[in-house]
Amino acid sequence: MKIEIENIKQKSSDKKSKKQKCVSELRQDLVTGDWVVIAVGRAKRPEDFSQNKKQKEESNEIESCLFEHPEKTGQEEDVLIYQSSGGDWTLRVFPNKYPAFCCDHEARYFSEGPYFFMDGTGYHEVIVTRDHYHQLALMREIEVAEVLDAYQERYLALMNKPHVNFIGIFHNHGKEAGASIAHPHSQLMAIPVISPYIQLELSGAERFYRQNKRCVYCLMIKHELESQKRVIFENEEFVAFCPFASRVNFEVWIAPKKHASYFERIKTEEKLKLAQVFRQALGAIHDSLGDPAYNFYIHTSPCDGNDYPHYHWHIEILPKTSTWAGFELETGIEISTIQPEMAAEYLRKQK
Amino acid sequence: MKIEIENIKQKSSDKKSKKQKCVSELRQDLVTGDWVVIAVGRAKRPEDFSQNKKQKEESNEIESCLFEHPEKTGQEEDVLIYQSSGGDWTLRVFPNKYPAFCCDHEARYFSEGPYFFMDGTGYHEVIVTRDHYHQLALMREIEVAEVLDAYQERYLALMNKPHVNFIGIFHNHGKEAGASIAHPHSQLMAIPVISPYIQLELSGAERFYRQNKRCVYCLMIKHELESQKRVIFENEEFVAFCPFASRVNFEVWIAPKKHASYFERIKTEEKLKLAQVFRQALGAIHDSLGDPAYNFYIHTSPCDGNDYPHYHWHIEILPKTSTWAGFELETGIEISTIQPEMAAEYLRKQK
Repeated sequence: MKIEIENIKQKSSDKKSKKQKCVSELRQDLVTGDWVVIAVGRAKRPEDFSQNKKQKEESNEIESCLFEHPEKTGQEEDVLIYQSSGGDWTLRVFPNKYPAFCCDHEARYFSEGPYFFMDGTGYHEVIVTRDHYHQLALMREIEVAEVLDAYQERYLALMNKPHVNFIGIFHNHGKEAGASIAHPHSQLMAIPVISPYIQLELSGAERFYRQNKRCVYCLMIKHELESQKRVIFENEEFVAFCPFASRVNFEVWIAPKKHASYFERIKTEEKLKLAQVFRQALGAIHDSLGDPAYNFYIHTSPCDGNDYPHYHWHIEILPKTSTWAGFELETGIEISTIQPEMAAEYLRKQK
Repeated sequence: MKIEIENIKQKSSDKKSKKQKCVSELRQDLVTGDWVVIAVGRAKRPEDFSQNKKQKEESNEIESCLFEHPEKTGQEEDVLIYQSSGGDWTLRVFPNKYPAFCCDHEARYFSEGPYFFMDGTGYHEVIVTRDHYHQLALMREIEVAEVLDAYQERYLALMNKPHVNFIGIFHNHGKEAGASIAHPHSQLMAIPVISPYIQLELSGAERFYRQNKRCVYCLMIKHELESQKRVIFENEEFVAFCPFASRVNFEVWIAPKKHASYFERIKTEEKLKLAQVFRQALGAIHDSLGDPAYNFYIHTSPCDGNDYPHYHWHIEILPKTSTWAGFELETGIEISTIQPEMAAEYLRKQK
């Protein structure tokens, strides 16, 4: 991590300017060292959290879709970051109107008693495809490849910005998966800290390499390809499989067969191969589970200036078939109710 | 951890007997070392996960409540584990009819290629209070104390069982928090592995003690009591506060003011003091947020035979005001939209 915490005493004047400038605070857990985001920029009044207040439901209808009305969401030309070429656009990228991270100020570090916190410096972008009803699972491979193009382009554009040490790219589909807008869109957050989940995988991969002189993901993929028990689809470059220790029902990972630590270095021809497997996996989930809500994201190496030669980037797709309850929240141990082998067999049938 | 993984090759005969005996498998993530539960005992057919199938909604009505009809859930006298004294019972404990962990067999360890898994050996109990409509937040202190009594009694009864290394006690309130049955009930899972979240806190507390020769939680509590910014309620023994790095909106922790590593060693007079603060906190959440869904759980030291003198047990209450989406699932970094200071101020008003 590039960050060095400067123990600056927070003055009342700081407090004021902070309120004007920052959309969020990154607060560090004193015990675990993990970070949480307090998105004060989109803070509501305490009363607004009450269940007694009728929640305003976002409509899924095209007539009221925010992404169909650029004037409402800051998609006007002047803030547009990226757009597919040609007059008739198919994909565009713009800043999230309610960002969890924002870049228009210098990052400052604060302390309060034993605690540390810092400005939520970074970037929060939205990647929108044109058709309101045309979700990723129903797209053609070439359209999925265009989305992957945008992920890579924006990653490359942001990875060397000051204070950006990790970039998360993710997609929420369906209300149960946290998608507040039905129009298909992905999000990108470029943030100053390395997340605990990535850190666990980085440490695990590093430890395994030290002990066994091989990549733990390569070993896993080799075993999956040999056993075929949990493989759903594969082509020359990529494999989609239900991981042995699936965290949720019908979880699917897509990984490059050849060792690769950095998503952003994917080649054009590989991207097309990825689009093929990715579309098949999303299509199988859509068809066999009746268009369930899901989240997917890319787990790739941090961009903090260090090398991560033992990490192996991959995509994780998590269909939303259950709710985290007390046991999962307490322990971090997840309970699923279908064996990954059976899930894979079922998804394979939809090929 | 007491467990030693024996690399036993799984035979086909094993497979058969396993299917008959085990309700779940604990599978270890090859990269991170974390565990997941595949609860095959309550497995559904793949088709049953489809969104196209009409989900059978559990009714919240008293007429069809499973806990009002012992014959349906195995609450009959012969399986009853614990019951409040007197003919007119107010609380009872019985085995979960669909357990995620079960004890009626010897634990076995298996491997498949590079992966490890083991039987989901353990105990899964349900702690039910009598009145269908009388949730914890509305109980009198003495009734809350009776629930805490049951937690402690069952903890003490199970902590020294073979293969039990950690005991999770948790409570789900409301459908959004994963409560499938509306009748107030808590659950207890006694399991053979130490969970990753607890492990993070144990390691953090241990590291902090080595560096600073003091308990990190004691330091935190001292600061909270001095600043009073995030304190909601306190009495001589306990304090309820919104943690500085809250993971969710209106998160509340309740901790003993004096250093204590083990919940199960709580004294009767302390339990009454805990009941007072606990009821006030739950009542404030109920009143100010309009009876929201929530989860709470006890974070206490493992019971694996080791000492954890630097850990400090506490209760965490997580109101359910938002859904984990792609960013949280990808990174483990949680986003909340109200400052803990403001949340505490709001909850304090309900005193």
